[in-house]
Amino acid sequence: MSRWEPNTRERLVRAALDLFVEQGYEATTVNQIAERAGGLTKTTFFRYFPDKREVLFAAGQQIHARVLADAIAAAPDPATPLQIVATALDALAATFTDERREFSARLRDVIAGNGELRERAALKRAALADATAEALRKRGVTDPSASLAAELGVRAFYCAYDRWAEPTNHQSLAEITRRELDELRGAIATLS
Amino acid sequence: MSRWEPNTRERLVRAALDLFVEQGYEATTVNQIAERAGGLTKTTFFRYFPDKREVLFAAGQQIHARVLADAIAAAPDPATPLQIVATALDALAATFTDERREFSARLRDVIAGNGELRERAALKRAALADATAEALRKRGVTDPSASLAAELGVRAFYCAYDRWAEPTNHQSLAEITRRELDELRGAIATLS
Repeated sequence: MSRWEPNTRERLVRAALDLFVEQGYEATTVNQIAERAGGLTKTTFFRYFPDKREVLFAAGQQIHARVLADAIAAAPDPATPLQIVATALDALAATFTDERREFSARLRDVIAGNGELRERAALKRAALADATAEALRKRGVTDPSASLAAELGVRAFYCAYDRWAEPTNHQSLAEITRRELDELRGAIATLS
Repeated sequence: MSRWEPNTRERLVRAALDLFVEQGYEATTVNQIAERAGGLTKTTFFRYFPDKREVLFAAGQQIHARVLADAIAAAPDPATPLQIVATALDALAATFTDERREFSARLRDVIAGNGELRERAALKRAALADATAEALRKRGVTDPSASLAAELGVRAFYCAYDRWAEPTNHQSLAEITRRELDELRGAIATLS
């Protein structure tokens, strides 16, 4: 199988997740991931990812940050910071189609079971909040409002994602995220 | 020098920070840290810390989380979630005496200069927010209010810490933290 096949990156991600589920994150080697992805080599793996931890995060973090930033740049005017964030979350949620639900559920379980992956997931979350805040500042939202709106948006998205990834859930991620954001907006009023 | 001397942990932390400043984090070994801390051995180092990254974080994270949780448990009733958080931040800020300002400034610079340390610092921040939220829930504050109040408190504290660590700053950390929390409270009103 050619290492230049266009979906090599996606195959490596899926192979890694399969192996992490089957035999655990610790026990899985980069060689095994490359082999499972269709007889690829370690060298090919390292062309896409710096290490086995990044295989589950690098691509997603980059893509999700860009989706959020682009949607914020394109959001209609005038809008409050949270309205802009809501538009961005709609765009991000739309990339999580129903077909991805099962993959997301497995990914979530693998991350929950390993400290190193949980650490990396927390860093991805922080990076998405940073990217969102930065995009809001480019729209003229000043700090601390920009960082706060970003934090609320990312928080709503992660809560929603956890519910959406439940196999029994049948709502769209966009729908759940909107509701979570509304709930956070309501909770803010109770703080002081 | 006896390895059981009571301030061994503190000496290891200070030796590590000195070496990280002098020769960089990457170039510093656990052996060098132990030696600089007064002729200790690597074995002694590992009795206190699992690795050289943790030397700057493990103790602080544990102590700060406990200070926050204890102050939240002891905060007077009735109080809004943000009032409880403000009390906890007062207690935490009180542990940062003026004598610690210079140490804090150097620590901040070392962390800023290294990706691995920045990652670890982000995880410490998340852990402090979790500890704060958990303590609020024990006081009967429900989610998402508990997590939001915790997030705002930790955010205020970190912003304040950055200003306080400036050598030109002469205010107390408690004072700056209170002001930051007030500013965040005001910013929330502008979000939607």
